[in-house]
Amino acid sequence: MIYLDNAATTFPKPEQVYDAVNKAQRQYAVNAGRGSYRTARKANDVIKETRELIADLVRCPDSKNVVLSPSATIALNQIINGLPYDNDTAVYVSPYEHNAVVRTLHRLSEIYGFTVRQLPVLSNTFEIDIDEMKNRFAVVHPDYVYVNHVSNVTGYILPYKTIFSESKKYNAVNILDTAQSLGVIDIAIDSDIDFLAFAGHKNLYSNIGVGGFVYNSKIELKPFITGGTGSNSLDPEMPASLPGKYEAASPDIVAIASLNASLKWLRSVGIGEVYRYKKELTEYAVERLSKINKIQLLLPEQNEEHISVISFLHEDYTPNELAEILDMDFDIAVRSGYHCAPYVHKLISTEDTLGTVRVGLGYFNTKNDIDRLAEALTELE
Amino acid sequence: MIYLDNAATTFPKPEQVYDAVNKAQRQYAVNAGRGSYRTARKANDVIKETRELIADLVRCPDSKNVVLSPSATIALNQIINGLPYDNDTAVYVSPYEHNAVVRTLHRLSEIYGFTVRQLPVLSNTFEIDIDEMKNRFAVVHPDYVYVNHVSNVTGYILPYKTIFSESKKYNAVNILDTAQSLGVIDIAIDSDIDFLAFAGHKNLYSNIGVGGFVYNSKIELKPFITGGTGSNSLDPEMPASLPGKYEAASPDIVAIASLNASLKWLRSVGIGEVYRYKKELTEYAVERLSKINKIQLLLPEQNEEHISVISFLHEDYTPNELAEILDMDFDIAVRSGYHCAPYVHKLISTEDTLGTVRVGLGYFNTKNDIDRLAEALTELE
Repeated sequence: MIYLDNAATTFPKPEQVYDAVNKAQRQYAVNAGRGSYRTARKANDVIKETRELIADLVRCPDSKNVVLSPSATIALNQIINGLPYDNDTAVYVSPYEHNAVVRTLHRLSEIYGFTVRQLPVLSNTFEIDIDEMKNRFAVVHPDYVYVNHVSNVTGYILPYKTIFSESKKYNAVNILDTAQSLGVIDIAIDSDIDFLAFAGHKNLYSNIGVGGFVYNSKIELKPFITGGTGSNSLDPEMPASLPGKYEAASPDIVAIASLNASLKWLRSVGIGEVYRYKKELTEYAVERLSKINKIQLLLPEQNEEHISVISFLHEDYTPNELAEILDMDFDIAVRSGYHCAPYVHKLISTEDTLGTVRVGLGYFNTKNDIDRLAEALTELE
Repeated sequence: MIYLDNAATTFPKPEQVYDAVNKAQRQYAVNAGRGSYRTARKANDVIKETRELIADLVRCPDSKNVVLSPSATIALNQIINGLPYDNDTAVYVSPYEHNAVVRTLHRLSEIYGFTVRQLPVLSNTFEIDIDEMKNRFAVVHPDYVYVNHVSNVTGYILPYKTIFSESKKYNAVNILDTAQSLGVIDIAIDSDIDFLAFAGHKNLYSNIGVGGFVYNSKIELKPFITGGTGSNSLDPEMPASLPGKYEAASPDIVAIASLNASLKWLRSVGIGEVYRYKKELTEYAVERLSKINKIQLLLPEQNEEHISVISFLHEDYTPNELAEILDMDFDIAVRSGYHCAPYVHKLISTEDTLGTVRVGLGYFNTKNDIDRLAEALTELE
């Protein structure tokens, strides 16, 4: 199989991840932080070190601010549901948000009555229209701003720094979804980012089962998921301190061990090298695919605003039909459909096309994989 | 290490679980149900089969009613937060509930203003006082009744059938937490059980990372965690149908594959045999420990109401001190503290003792393990 669905989850993982999982399972997959025996403490040490690796990756000074969750979706639910709202809360989102944000805010908007406002885009390029955004912020001051760092549909790298520095002028709380970026693009958390949500199993190359968020805000986040924490058990409230306040349930030590190993692998490769290689692959894929007839690429305007993900349409097939042909006839795995990101399809006019065909490139892809895809699409011209 | 903390998580897992994890990771750990390529469908088939294995285990006629979640804690959060409440909702809980229930209901009781009522117990045996419960149900008709099937502190097997058949006379919604029972005690879901929450990593012997609930109710449960489902992506609402309505985020295929393997292992052993063996071990442990000086066992009154878990106190050491000695001097892993179950400690007078020492027996324990514990405790007499 030529695997080109890395935006969904990276596959395969580094060999170190498989080794770490096997070792964790056999040696210390006990209930970390809840037992006072050495094996439980060993498990806890692995969790602590994993927190430190994430903190180090985003230059967060205190690893206690790294909250581990079962997924980025749950982390975003914890953030979004943990914030206070009323009927005139000014909530802005980019039009590139994932349903983990869109559906969660939609539910809250129905409860509280606030409006979810999309950041404006330039009508020709679909880039965030910063000038118009500033105008709108001046009229309706932002309370919360949600930005998906890299679109999982078009690979557009959003200018979150500019957006957040503008919204911070109104003391907005800024939330960055790095599911498609952390591990590829260097991100240093600073005072403009209040919450940074991350997925382990995408560009951090862990198994599915662990994600989380970095808490970098003065705002109080109510615990959303409550339960046992192995501490203060007689207290009906969650513990007051980070990260335990947001970490109910037995830690998923095996998934966390996989993240521990993948973060060490990533460090040994270097984010700069991952970016360089994925950028090279992305450009190569764009170049090859752009020469194929009947293919319409749905690319960001500027090359430097683009990484990892390439969506396209085919004149003769729906996205789903083409994905099936690529799978059955060429053993190439791509993704088809709306990719759990609803708003963007209005921009790029792919609501009626049943979405797009998506190529998600990973660090383990090669130019040969792209050649195979290009050859298959050429055969189908 | 003599591992006696199986009530926290079973360890080790059957060898089949490790094999299944390795195979899933290397062969099909892609984004199940979201890709239209064969490997994604293979992953989806494993998930579907796992749902069927759970349905089969509890004799649920439709496996679509089996919702998979990252943990029993999250499953309980989904149930508890998904139900409707107002300020006079009559919520009853057993005094043996875990903080996944206690803290979650506490938070909601603060929002809605309802009272959480504990089911009454007999003052001498701490068994549920069924007669008094009937009286209270007659006065304040139950809307919701939460029962932890087996106490994770004392190993008491609660008479959920009697409780639920009484509460159903008032059309209560009944929620059974089987974290400590499913896989040990045969449970057939029937119309008296509306929701059955389960943990994979305890008595079902999967890795941590998967639990869930069986939806067996006519009551509507609002989705609590929202996000991408790989379906209906343009719709800001979660899909209407089970199980997708409650399954946001990429399925944790590796953890689910571990549950798939462990359920097949469990089926090959047989629940009856697991029960028989664990009962034998439990009785043997009680017999051995009851002969040791300075140990006070905190047991259910009736032998037939007891399985898997034995809590005790020591005259000379706090629970934590004793657990540390057992670990450091004898390489025996037991748990100390309150075990995330707040109410029960008032009953058994272990609030001021800093909780209990807990022995959690698993299917892979042997009488020799218990002998080693008994010998260690005898040395400390």
